[in-house]
Amino acid sequence: MPHSEELAGRRHTLAHLLAAAVLRHYPHAKPTIGPAIENGFYYDFDFGDGPKPGADDLPRLTQTMRELLPQWTEWKRKEVNPDEAKAVFADNPYKLELIDELEREGVTITLYTCGGFTDLCRGGHAPRPAQDIDPQSFTLDRVAGAYWRGDENNPMLTRIYGLAFASASELQDFLAQREEAKKRDHRKIGKELDLFTFSELVGPGLPLWTPLGTTMRILLDQYVWQLRSRFGYQRVTIPHLTRKALYETSGHWEKFADELFKVISREEKEMALKPMNCPHHTQIFARRPHSYREMPQRFAETTMVYRDEQSGELGGLTRVLSITQDDSHVFCRVNQIQQEFFSIWDIVDTFYKTFGFVLRVRLSFHDPQHPEKYLGSEEVWARAESALREIAKERGADYFEAPGEAAMYGPKLDFMAKDSLGREHQVATIQLDFNLPERFNLTCVNEKGEEERVVMIHCAIMGSIERFSAVLLEHTAGHLPFWLAPEQVRVIPVSESELKDAQEAAAEFAREGIRASVSEPSSSLGKRVREAAASKIPIRAVIGKREVRDGTLTLTHAPTNTTTTLGRSEALEVFRSHNQLGASDIRLEPQA
Amino acid sequence: MPHSEELAGRRHTLAHLLAAAVLRHYPHAKPTIGPAIENGFYYDFDFGDGPKPGADDLPRLTQTMRELLPQWTEWKRKEVNPDEAKAVFADNPYKLELIDELEREGVTITLYTCGGFTDLCRGGHAPRPAQDIDPQSFTLDRVAGAYWRGDENNPMLTRIYGLAFASASELQDFLAQREEAKKRDHRKIGKELDLFTFSELVGPGLPLWTPLGTTMRILLDQYVWQLRSRFGYQRVTIPHLTRKALYETSGHWEKFADELFKVISREEKEMALKPMNCPHHTQIFARRPHSYREMPQRFAETTMVYRDEQSGELGGLTRVLSITQDDSHVFCRVNQIQQEFFSIWDIVDTFYKTFGFVLRVRLSFHDPQHPEKYLGSEEVWARAESALREIAKERGADYFEAPGEAAMYGPKLDFMAKDSLGREHQVATIQLDFNLPERFNLTCVNEKGEEERVVMIHCAIMGSIERFSAVLLEHTAGHLPFWLAPEQVRVIPVSESELKDAQEAAAEFAREGIRASVSEPSSSLGKRVREAAASKIPIRAVIGKREVRDGTLTLTHAPTNTTTTLGRSEALEVFRSHNQLGASDIRLEPQA
Repeated sequence: MPHSEELAGRRHTLAHLLAAAVLRHYPHAKPTIGPAIENGFYYDFDFGDGPKPGADDLPRLTQTMRELLPQWTEWKRKEVNPDEAKAVFADNPYKLELIDELEREGVTITLYTCGGFTDLCRGGHAPRPAQDIDPQSFTLDRVAGAYWRGDENNPMLTRIYGLAFASASELQDFLAQREEAKKRDHRKIGKELDLFTFSELVGPGLPLWTPLGTTMRILLDQYVWQLRSRFGYQRVTIPHLTRKALYETSGHWEKFADELFKVISREEKEMALKPMNCPHHTQIFARRPHSYREMPQRFAETTMVYRDEQSGELGGLTRVLSITQDDSHVFCRVNQIQQEFFSIWDIVDTFYKTFGFVLRVRLSFHDPQHPEKYLGSEEVWARAESALREIAKERGADYFEAPGEAAMYGPKLDFMAKDSLGREHQVATIQLDFNLPERFNLTCVNEKGEEERVVMIHCAIMGSIERFSAVLLEHTAGHLPFWLAPEQVRVIPVSESELKDAQEAAAEFAREGIRASVSEPSSSLGKRVREAAASKIPIRAVIGKREVRDGTLTLTHAPTNTTTTLGRSEALEVFRSHNQLGASDIRLEPQA
Repeated sequence: MPHSEELAGRRHTLAHLLAAAVLRHYPHAKPTIGPAIENGFYYDFDFGDGPKPGADDLPRLTQTMRELLPQWTEWKRKEVNPDEAKAVFADNPYKLELIDELEREGVTITLYTCGGFTDLCRGGHAPRPAQDIDPQSFTLDRVAGAYWRGDENNPMLTRIYGLAFASASELQDFLAQREEAKKRDHRKIGKELDLFTFSELVGPGLPLWTPLGTTMRILLDQYVWQLRSRFGYQRVTIPHLTRKALYETSGHWEKFADELFKVISREEKEMALKPMNCPHHTQIFARRPHSYREMPQRFAETTMVYRDEQSGELGGLTRVLSITQDDSHVFCRVNQIQQEFFSIWDIVDTFYKTFGFVLRVRLSFHDPQHPEKYLGSEEVWARAESALREIAKERGADYFEAPGEAAMYGPKLDFMAKDSLGREHQVATIQLDFNLPERFNLTCVNEKGEEERVVMIHCAIMGSIERFSAVLLEHTAGHLPFWLAPEQVRVIPVSESELKDAQEAAAEFAREGIRASVSEPSSSLGKRVREAAASKIPIRAVIGKREVRDGTLTLTHAPTNTTTTLGRSEALEVFRSHNQLGASDIRLEPQA
């Protein structure tokens, strides 16, 4: 794999090549700018009132690029003065504007020519394109509109996007993965599995969870709670509303203003929907004094928070107005921070390992250039950030630092999970907070009988149930592990004659806590098997004459497509042994 | 016990007697009106600028009433014309105003005299007060301000309240019960048990639930869910927010306007916090077509709703802005209504019996005089109300009808629970609704393949967790049954020497799902026992030298105060057998 700068050079070169190909077919086009981007490149053109390419024209343009490429053997670089440059681009107002800018900035103006095509450019190319670039390693991808320099007061240009990778096989991998990701879109899977729905009357960004989806939510939440309860967490309950005073004290009223849903009561009191749970939780902690013997206090609550997002940004479960956080706040002493972080880290590790995610850690620090975005002094931030760095080192974690990614009240330890398609998602976060305890004057009484300032640690294991569900559904392509599937077993009688046996089997499973249902023989066996498969129910249990005679079930495991025949009690044993929260998934031995 | 009309006659008589006693001490007082009320009577006086009685003067006035009573042997009734009446009350503008009114209405004016005291009156007295009324069966109670005829534009009068019952013992019972109720105030108990708190920053009406309170909430909710899950309910999840369109369709935007918390989004969209869950739940039902084979669909969700109440009306848990409803909506066919009502009725009966409440049923019908308060036509209401009446008859219930108590979309079957102090509380409700299915066009596909309108049944078993908690805490005086107590067992070592044994015992209990803690010997045994008693922890388990030697625990059951000594595993068995949801409470055999 080439160095990333080398790949960027190839992508940039391909942008030039695209411009050359476009001018071949659309001589009236005025090229503007064309950079390398993630996964490829683009070039923006003004086609004026003349014809312009659409999606259908991209294969022909790609072909032209591949035809031109062999002539692109080497680059000629030429330094020119502004007047010379303007003479070259006399009929292209966009390039003239760029040249004027370069002149004002006193930058050396350079022209690059390759394969007979000259462009205004700062350089950074594949040195010998014809030799460096595999013609099958790139393809044009799509056409979109884009304002000149991103400003909606400027003319609308036509942007052509291309994909380009180091090799033809990498391009094929990318296209295949993108195709797979499209099939795995959680919005599509959510519908197939009947997990959630949206209503135009309720509005975008406000998912409504069906019985099956709610079962999945509850199981996920119970699993997190099971992991937490081992470490002394206790659940609390708060309302979603508060008077303004709480957020004036916490600082959210000012720093979080845009995203706050504000509410005016009938008595003209200013209130808000909670965008976070921490300020409310401080008020539970502060209800009475706490002895050092009672520290840490660990509060957990799974509850919805509300953030006012622009509706254009809403889509599926990844961007919602109602966000169910599996939140927790630990109130502890400074010398308890590390132990508490390690406990949470254990929970996070266990939770994500269960689903086969690979984690790495980002230390999200504040941006010293923008102190106005944060609460608290530089000293407090320095102290908190060096504590986090120590913890990550001590743990021997795979971590990197990211300035500017902190929460407003403190630095974060963010976990990034790589999914089965190789995509990385930000998931759990642990946040260290010296600021809210200061603002709310939170203390414990220490061994000397003095009031001692406490520290808060914020953590959501899933982040939010909505976001985690989206990631998990795409990661598993909807094939949830047996313990988490809302419907676990679909018992399918071949015909009416086996219906009674099917019902008995399902009832027996249900008594043992297995979520089983019967597919009544009102349509063909094939149709009913396909329905169960489409709903990605982990186990299809078919009962025909033979199975009735033998007291067996013919089981098919949806994710692996293995089929085997087991006695009914044997089957139940397999189900039971994979039904506890977080259990490893069922592996059926294929039939001999 | 006298007939209620007879008791009302005595109370009315005592109002006259109060006026006579007041005039004895305050001759400048102008009596206005004095009716019988629940538990007693009152009389309103204008004391002008002269002296007026305060709370301290009530014993003396009560005494005077008792002294005058023997002279009140019989009534003289006299019909008079308006002029004669005005002559009698010439210096009392209030009585003159009343006489003018009677004259305009053409009502016969009567004066009643007893014990030498004459009042303008329509009658309705104890015929022979001296003989009929036990002087110890009444007492004056309190003084308050009241506007003449309840109109704030009128002068403020002084109202003196009295209590009066059929006998001296009934008065004593009432006073004792009231005293007990004050001790049992759920706000006081909530603090003693550390169940919930309020924060000035968050605001009134928005309770924050502590770890112990949340444990109680979760257990209550799990119990309701356990009862419901037997009847095919499924849980769903909705956000607390919606666009206006949902409530325009449901009718809440117009009919529920005052109590709706309205929210304007950053994009100026009109939104609202949900005051009810039904409109959201219809949108889950409506996400896809339903075959008649899938009916009923039974959705349950425990979730907070928000209603904008005036802050003056907020207090403790009985009137809150954030109301946690254990809500459910059954979508069914007309011929399934009765069966669904009976299922819910079974759940309600089981739930309230668990806590020892006695239930009766109110059929809350609409008020035909005020159709504007309701959705839907007279026909639909008549149909729904007669269906409810049939169900109550069929069930053989103790019911009464109450016009004007319906919900805006349909009639209700309200359960009234009598608590241990004899007070009646409205608790669960079942509501029958033909209107929302119409408004949201909710249907199922019937046997003929046609769309058939469905019916909705709304029900909350607890009503709300807040209200039910308040009622339950007062009903039990905070002595929650063992299975529901957030902390069930407090293990109390007599001294440091038994601490290890105490910790072992508590850990053993915890492993078996018993919520047990250890009271560390940092203060005297007596103090720690008193603390546990004040927190009303059901079982105090003391371990001293003898208990360590014998492997026993000395258990005290807080509600009954019985004490007994049991082996550790014997004790665990007692705890376990009373720990399932809804279990009967522990009864310890007193020590021999």
